[in-house]
This record gives sequence, C-alpha cells and structure tokens, in this order.
Amino acid sequence: MKIVCLDLEGVLVPEVWINVAERTGIPALRATTRDVPDYDVLMKQRLRILDEHGIKLKDIQAVIGGMRPLDGAREFLDALRARYPVVILSDTFEQFAQPLMRQLGWPTLFCHSLAIDGEGRVVDYRLRKRDHKRLSIEAFRALNFTTIAAGDSYNDTTMLGAAHQGFLFHAPENVVREFPQFPLAESFAGLLEAIAAVPEAVA
Amino acid sequence: MKIVCLDLEGVLVPEVWINVAERTGIPALRATTRDVPDYDVLMKQRLRILDEHGIKLKDIQAVIGGMRPLDGAREFLDALRARYPVVILSDTFEQFAQPLMRQLGWPTLFCHSLAIDGEGRVVDYRLRKRDHKRLSIEAFRALNFTTIAAGDSYNDTTMLGAAHQGFLFHAPENVVREFPQFPLAESFAGLLEAIAAVPEAVA
Repeated sequence: MKIVCLDLEGVLVPEVWINVAERTGIPALRATTRDVPDYDVLMKQRLRILDEHGIKLKDIQAVIGGMRPLDGAREFLDALRARYPVVILSDTFEQFAQPLMRQLGWPTLFCHSLAIDGEGRVVDYRLRKRDHKRLSIEAFRALNFTTIAAGDSYNDTTMLGAAHQGFLFHAPENVVREFPQFPLAESFAGLLEAIAAVPEAVA
Repeated sequence: MKIVCLDLEGVLVPEVWINVAERTGIPALRATTRDVPDYDVLMKQRLRILDEHGIKLKDIQAVIGGMRPLDGAREFLDALRARYPVVILSDTFEQFAQPLMRQLGWPTLFCHSLAIDGEGRVVDYRLRKRDHKRLSIEAFRALNFTTIAAGDSYNDTTMLGAAHQGFLFHAPENVVREFPQFPLAESFAGLLEAIAAVPEAVA
C-alpha cells in the first residue's frame, strides 16, 4: 500500500517567508532553505531580523492569512487523498499553518512549533524532531508502506532519498543540478501520474 | 505537539460488517472484533461466509456506498483537524474505505487491503502490518509527538495502551469492564475536551 508524503511550501503553498519579506519590506527575510541549506542558521537569522524590526507573531499570521494555496494545489491534494493516505512533512510551524491547512481541506501535517513570549514575540523555535521528514519516511517504511515523497528544496532531499521513490517538484536549478537522482515533476497532473506509476514495494 | 489517532468503525462510521450482515440477511456476518478478539479467526470466518453465499466485492461496496458517517462525526473530525494532526488507524481495507473517507473529507487513513480475484471475489486479506495501530503510535512517539488515541474495541486496546493517553469511545460493556485503565468518552464534544486537556509530553 502506498503513502504519499509532500513538502508544503513551494509544493502546495507559496513560500511563507518570502511573502513575509515582501509584505514587511525586509528583503533579508526572503532567504529560504533553497538559499541557506543549514536550517538552524537560517532560522536564527530570521528570528534576529524579526526582533530587530519589532515584527510579532500576529504580524506574520496576518500575512499568512492573506495567502492562498498554489493554483491547482487543492484539486491535486483531493485527487491524491482519494487514492492514497497523504501526510504533509514540513519544516513550518503549527502557529503558521492553520489558515493554509483550512484552505487545503485539513490535510495531516507534521511540522514544528514556535516559542512565543508574553508580548507575542517569536523568541525561539522548537524542532519537534531534527530531520523529521526522513525519519517519518523511515517510520512509514517500517509500517510496510510503499513510500513516495515530493519536495522542492534542500531540506527535502533526505526525505526523497529515504523514500522508495522521491520526486523533485518545481525545484530550482541548483537543487536539480545537485540531486540528479530524483526524477522531476513539473505539474500537478504529471506528479499524480508519476505517483500512480510507482510500483508497490514487496513487503 | 499532539497527534490524535482514531479508530474508524464504531467511532466515526458504523460497523461495516454489521451493515453488510443486515443488507445481505446473513446474521453470521454480524460478528466484529467486539465479539471475536482474534482478528485472523474473525476474517477467515467472514471470507468463508462470503464465498458460501457468492457475495463479491462489488456487493459489499454497494452496501458501504449507502452508509453515512455517525451523526456529528464529520464536524468532530473537522474540529479536531483544525487543532492537531489526525491519523485514522483502522483494520478495515482500502477497497472498503473510499466512500466513507469521501464523506469525512479525506482524512489520512492507515489500513489493510483485500486480495480480489478476476471474478471480483474476495479471496484473501493482507494485513499491511500486524498490530499496526500500536506500531503506528510507537512510531509517532519516536517522532516526538504526544500521542492520543481513541477506539471502541478489542483491536484498539494495544493502541490505547501504547499512547500517552488512550480513551475508550462508545465502547461496549465487556470492553469497558476488561480495560478499566482507559477513561471513557461518551460524546464527540466530551472526547474533544478530553483530548485538549491531555498535557504535552516532555520530549
């Protein structure tokens, strides 16, 4: 039996931090794991910038509240969920996810959480589990699922490598070049077809 | 971060086999894990009865197509998914689940599959993984989730025992008597409240 694991940002919804950067006018917040592969370095940089500019959780949530899933993402996800169990594996935070999950019809999301102080400042982030995308795939393999994963960025590549079949979806040129072992999918229809074609692993 | 794992039949939807028994007029198909704790004994008995009466997969699917989730189940599930990741852990089969999953808004379901022959007869069943409910909970614990589970029957009790907190929901008298260690929830509102009150486990 197959299970499909998807990255969130860049696959189903736009990059949250890029939207925050644009709406706040702080270009330094545009950096993502596409640019800075070390997630801890990236997050510490983001928290420092937020603090310097006095941006609180509610300001970020206001930006996210105005975001929409990528064109066709909801239809893709519904078609996928009609055929396979689906789990979204993301390095986002539960405090960010809700407005986007509502628009996607409440798919199952495994992510992290932020530490917020009494004034609503983002003071720290708490990884639920380091490299949880890969570890989740390994857990699903141990439960005898045929694991299929799709993502667009550096923080997806251990997940793609651990899965029976990984796909790069809408990936930027540098990621495509560094990880030629993962087939590319360029549209939701193409990804759906590629997932259907993955053979069942022998238990 | 919490994750909520729910049994399907008896919790969110009626018992499929009881409905099949009623619609086919074969009382022996009424038996469930509430009556026969050994799942393999139960399933072999069901397959033998189906074969004796010439009942095929499409006949069972026709019954399931006419079933509806329990009153309030969809609203409960939506309220739950707005707050926590949810995975349904069921000993049903993917060939049975789709019409019910559609009505529940495509939640993530981990279950098993049936072997169907060229004439559409159910010739065998394939457990994806024995005791997968308990093993899934253990996998989620290893991913640093605070695990909460609810079910109504014998085949849920290892899952309830493995979780940080297990609840019996709409459980029959014999299960309640044998497993006094699990708190009872008698309504969706009560279960939602009880889940919210479970403390986060320390990672």
